[in-house]
Amino acid sequence: MTDHSPERSNRKAELLANVVEHIDMKSFDARPIIEAMEKMSFSSRDLGRAAKIYNMMLEDECAVFLVLAGSTSAGGCMDVYADMVKNNMVDAVVATGASIVDMDFFEGLGFKHYQAPLDEAGGNGDDNELRDLYIDRIYDTFIDEEELQAVDHTIYEIAEQIGEGVLSSRAFIKEMGKYLVEHGKKEHSLVRIAYEKDVPIFCPAFSDSSAGFGLVKHQVERIKAGKGYVAIDSVADFRELTMIKIEAGASGLLMVGGGVPKNFVQDTVVCAEILGYDDCEMHKYAIQITVADTRDGACSSSTLKEASSWGKVSTTYEQMVFAEASTVIPLLASDAWHREHWKGRKERRFGKMFD
Amino acid sequence: MTDHSPERSNRKAELLANVVEHIDMKSFDARPIIEAMEKMSFSSRDLGRAAKIYNMMLEDECAVFLVLAGSTSAGGCMDVYADMVKNNMVDAVVATGASIVDMDFFEGLGFKHYQAPLDEAGGNGDDNELRDLYIDRIYDTFIDEEELQAVDHTIYEIAEQIGEGVLSSRAFIKEMGKYLVEHGKKEHSLVRIAYEKDVPIFCPAFSDSSAGFGLVKHQVERIKAGKGYVAIDSVADFRELTMIKIEAGASGLLMVGGGVPKNFVQDTVVCAEILGYDDCEMHKYAIQITVADTRDGACSSSTLKEASSWGKVSTTYEQMVFAEASTVIPLLASDAWHREHWKGRKERRFGKMFD
Amino acid sequence: MTDHSPERSNRKAELLANVVEHIDMKSFDARPIIEAMEKMSFSSRDLGRAAKIYNMMLEDECAVFLVLAGSTSAGGCMDVYADMVKNNMVDAVVATGASIVDMDFFEGLGFKHYQAPLDEAGGNGDDNELRDLYIDRIYDTFIDEEELQAVDHTIYEIAEQIGEGVLSSRAFIKEMGKYLVEHGKKEHSLVRIAYEKDVPIFCPAFSDSSAGFGLVKHQVERIKAGKGYVAIDSVADFRELTMIKIEAGASGLLMVGGGVPKNFVQDTVVCAEILGYDDCEMHKYAIQITVADTRDGACSSSTLKEASSWGKVSTTYEQMVFAEASTVIPLLASDAWHREHWKGRKERRFGKMFD
Amino acid sequence: MTDHSPERSNRKAELLANVVEHIDMKSFDARPIIEAMEKMSFSSRDLGRAAKIYNMMLEDECAVFLVLAGSTSAGGCMDVYADMVKNNMVDAVVATGASIVDMDFFEGLGFKHYQAPLDEAGGNGDDNELRDLYIDRIYDTFIDEEELQAVDHTIYEIAEQIGEGVLSSRAFIKEMGKYLVEHGKKEHSLVRIAYEKDVPIFCPAFSDSSAGFGLVKHQVERIKAGKGYVAIDSVADFRELTMIKIEAGASGLLMVGGGVPKNFVQDTVVCAEILGYDDCEMHKYAIQITVADTRDGACSSSTLKEASSWGKVSTTYEQMVFAEASTVIPLLASDAWHREHWKGRKERRFGKMFD
Repeated sequence: MTDHSPERSNRKAELLANVVEHIDMKSFDARPIIEAMEKMSFSSRDLGRAAKIYNMMLEDECAVFLVLAGSTSAGGCMDVYADMVKNNMVDAVVATGASIVDMDFFEGLGFKHYQAPLDEAGGNGDDNELRDLYIDRIYDTFIDEEELQAVDHTIYEIAEQIGEGVLSSRAFIKEMGKYLVEHGKKEHSLVRIAYEKDVPIFCPAFSDSSAGFGLVKHQVERIKAGKGYVAIDSVADFRELTMIKIEAGASGLLMVGGGVPKNFVQDTVVCAEILGYDDCEMHKYAIQITVADTRDGACSSSTLKEASSWGKVSTTYEQMVFAEASTVIPLLASDAWHREHWKGRKERRFGKMFD
Repeated sequence: MTDHSPERSNRKAELLANVVEHIDMKSFDARPIIEAMEKMSFSSRDLGRAAKIYNMMLEDECAVFLVLAGSTSAGGCMDVYADMVKNNMVDAVVATGASIVDMDFFEGLGFKHYQAPLDEAGGNGDDNELRDLYIDRIYDTFIDEEELQAVDHTIYEIAEQIGEGVLSSRAFIKEMGKYLVEHGKKEHSLVRIAYEKDVPIFCPAFSDSSAGFGLVKHQVERIKAGKGYVAIDSVADFRELTMIKIEAGASGLLMVGGGVPKNFVQDTVVCAEILGYDDCEMHKYAIQITVADTRDGACSSSTLKEASSWGKVSTTYEQMVFAEASTVIPLLASDAWHREHWKGRKERRFGKMFD
Repeated sequence: MTDHSPERSNRKAELLANVVEHIDMKSFDARPIIEAMEKMSFSSRDLGRAAKIYNMMLEDECAVFLVLAGSTSAGGCMDVYADMVKNNMVDAVVATGASIVDMDFFEGLGFKHYQAPLDEAGGNGDDNELRDLYIDRIYDTFIDEEELQAVDHTIYEIAEQIGEGVLSSRAFIKEMGKYLVEHGKKEHSLVRIAYEKDVPIFCPAFSDSSAGFGLVKHQVERIKAGKGYVAIDSVADFRELTMIKIEAGASGLLMVGGGVPKNFVQDTVVCAEILGYDDCEMHKYAIQITVADTRDGACSSSTLKEASSWGKVSTTYEQMVFAEASTVIPLLASDAWHREHWKGRKERRFGKMFD
Repeated sequence: MTDHSPERSNRKAELLANVVEHIDMKSFDARPIIEAMEKMSFSSRDLGRAAKIYNMMLEDECAVFLVLAGSTSAGGCMDVYADMVKNNMVDAVVATGASIVDMDFFEGLGFKHYQAPLDEAGGNGDDNELRDLYIDRIYDTFIDEEELQAVDHTIYEIAEQIGEGVLSSRAFIKEMGKYLVEHGKKEHSLVRIAYEKDVPIFCPAFSDSSAGFGLVKHQVERIKAGKGYVAIDSVADFRELTMIKIEAGASGLLMVGGGVPKNFVQDTVVCAEILGYDDCEMHKYAIQITVADTRDGACSSSTLKEASSWGKVSTTYEQMVFAEASTVIPLLASDAWHREHWKGRKERRFGKMFD
């Protein structure tokens, strides 16, 4: 059914010509910028303070949770996140399925994201044409859907190999990391490095991603064949993440975007209480970078002060930063990397708790 | 540890004095407003067109998915959603856990949401004081945390009664509906009416809600006791929802907010394809009401045209509406209710597919 | 140089086929909706309270300033504003030049705004094509630029007729009202009705509009000819508006959008003080409808509480409403019209102060 | 009437303890960051492209207009703007009155802006307390109102010295620059440097600022005394700015925020046409940094593509950047400064056209 004409191929190649290159936080020193911004107003000042709080997290005896929603991994921040894990600047990750599966694991298999070409009409492509060409669009970023299908299939294969069982997303993602070590085409993948460093990754809505396609196929076929299958228990995610929070003691949150990951990681404090850990402390440090408007009453946009009414986050060291994250994450991360507070940090290797 | 002084009680009572009352779409006729807005510009015009598309969904032989993220259920739109299910204006629901558990099930048990008082300083409360009083805040709306704990506990009890098994969130929410029929204190609950009408409800990130607390407690205790337990398989959610989409044929989406529910329901088209249903049609109609800004590249804010590049949504009858949803859902719903296209609709009772 | 081919004419006619029709607040009764919204949360509740405050303004012995920025006049709210002036619901207007000249005066001369057609590609037109066709775009609204040039020319003629002098924008707009009474093609024009009712209209940045073109042409020609000319003194605007505020005593602001008009009308309180009127009270009531995000630190987005730190607005009866104004102004205005507090109001006819 | 107690003084001093320090674009080199961002997605990429376009403006034989709305001058970007003028990176300025008078001229007289203290409650101050203390608030930035009154008074004095005449805002601001050379307390003031470099500054809504207070006082007193007075003719602003555009030939716009300055400078192209300069080219380059949402249909948020439908801006080299400007202006400006394309530029000294 697919059109294999050379015209189509050429057009597709033309649209997928410019690779998104991930920024390297180590290649420039953002410290003087961050220091200057701290003395300004508005979002600059907020960014300056957020960077300071992130450095406090790294200096303090404190577990750092990197919390990801949105598409910054596709949009050029993937190496920053991978470097954070590699350099012991993060102890656990909570993320959307897309960030982990469609974006990082996808690139781990050797695929790329592309910058949509700027055309005179200035839009980001004619979506009907893109559909015909099997190009998926994330705002101004393109993905070759045929490549993305390879992800679905790899997930299917990993599930087939596991065969049967009720797993947390963390346990499944660990298998994905192992797969990348063996078959991956990119060393600098978050999933892979996290696997190697025992940094657990949680996707509380794991099936809401390319992983879902492979897993549903796996289940449907095995149900048809009368076999057991792999299930992803989101309660296990919450249970395990709460155990980590209890084990961690003091904790800090570096949140990019909102959504399920934001709420999920914050809720571990309440969950610990319900399990009888009355002395579980609120998240001591918290940063959220988002452009969401508080006035819609949704969780993604809710302030960290609001979270403190729920007993989740302490109000002393919290900072919201109003910015499209790809513009400020490189500055915040570069500042922290160059200040080197991560150098003396103890490796937590929380992933080992579940081995 | 909790302070039981009369001062504290009085202060708490003072803060929880004004109940949020849910708007009744049947009590006023929004048709002339919607008709006039269609001839205007900007968001009015978009709302007018969205209402028209919703009416087309109801007229057409088409399954309607109500897709909820954000806090409009807490904020006064809960009766609208319940009435939609009751009056056969919706065939399935995909929602955040909070909408279903913390908000609707919570009120189903007889509890209420409250309007934060307007004080001279004009904020929505001092979050440190609120924490001390066990009052949780959603922007300008208050919840008694002690009441919310009753939800956690009821979920725990329902899980204990089920005992063991791998369930989709839909199957668990069905049990919650049954519980409300037997023990609930409010007839007009979405969870309850959906149960009675076999309208399935899916929460793809079910444990990211008050349900998570009860379920983790259940698992931890039973693991400790060496017993089997209830797991919530998010793959099963995706599998079942895809089956419904395949069964449904033509479909339309009425989306309030974005987040996981939006992406999840759209992805069923792709999932059906992967399962070999190559003729599964894209969602024919789609409406999304959101204030999210497209420029952050996240899924919540992504346009329905972008979704069509992924092959999920057809571009012919789609409409984004830029509005805090509580201001426009009552108008859109009242218009559709008074136009009565729902009167002749066939009941789909998709829930029966899984009995 | 302009292409007069029939193809071009046809294409232009095709793009300008659907007239924007202004909503009639009298044709539906929004009272039950507004009452229900007051008991909800988020923007609904804010709209409910804003409507209440507007009714308080009308009931109280208080001068009401309608303050307009943005394009709601072009987008279907023009009749609402004209009806407010006609029915004594407003005592003075402060607006952008575009609202008054390009939009209202333009329609007063018999021209129209158009809804951009929805095409499959879904944008609001190819701006390069629009430029070639002399069609100007405001988001999803089109204007025939050749008609707009008639406005420039009429302004030029009015200036020529005045000949020479330093005028406030108010004085010039009064001449425009007079022109419409004599030559206008639409009775229901804000500029015309305001003229007839002695309701003064101020445009603090008057030359930032179609009026600027006609006036610059007038000045350039007369300077070349060595003659005196008309100048528009923005200090006179501020002086006259402050005089009205002093005369008014208690006052209320109904602000749509932000920008210069918002700040200008608020500043009259400070200006009165500087002139020695120490007892000039802050604006007692204030409503602003805007989607601007406070976090950019600009005046348009600044809260009314912030304005109170400057001594401009009292905090007791102020309400921000987060909405694209065309969706809520019709509800707020219809509610006030049907409650009829305007019926007993004294006509202030502030325009007469300067005769 | 003012409270002069030591408690009040202490409290005020406490609130005005942290001076806003303006960032120095020369003190760090943003080139590697900007280069990396160009290869990313979303706002990073847009910022990278905007920086490239600004460099093109500087390389090309092209007049550069710096266009300012919002409060970035108060919030730490003032030195960037002053340095741009000093280093021949800008040929004319169009701004809100507040940017020029309340912020830059204010600091030129030796006064400062302050960072609002972070308190535990986390707001930006109790506005009722601020009003009592004569502290004015701009989001998270404080101003001593008693110092601001010195600006009003200085403007009054300058007007008194001029005595009588109809001036453009440019002509008046030139006098302000002269005043600063003679009496100012800060060399690095935009108004002062612009005066010295014959870079004209236009404020199309000049009286909508602290200048308005001084000028109204001047007019009222002189009218009472039967004398002539200074008037600020906004038509003259438009006429002069159009003359500069005609003289300039090719032109580029660097716009921070929207509002009147954005529209005003764009309209010069149309105005030139009306004056018979049919060959006046559209603005060849255009950048706008704003967080305004396009969906409200207002001018501030309208895209540069929309401006091209009006024949104002060419679509080839235009770029919107979605960011709170204080976070990105330092990067964009530092990049351009270090690339040194400004070094060979011809000084335009447009101010001399009107001597």
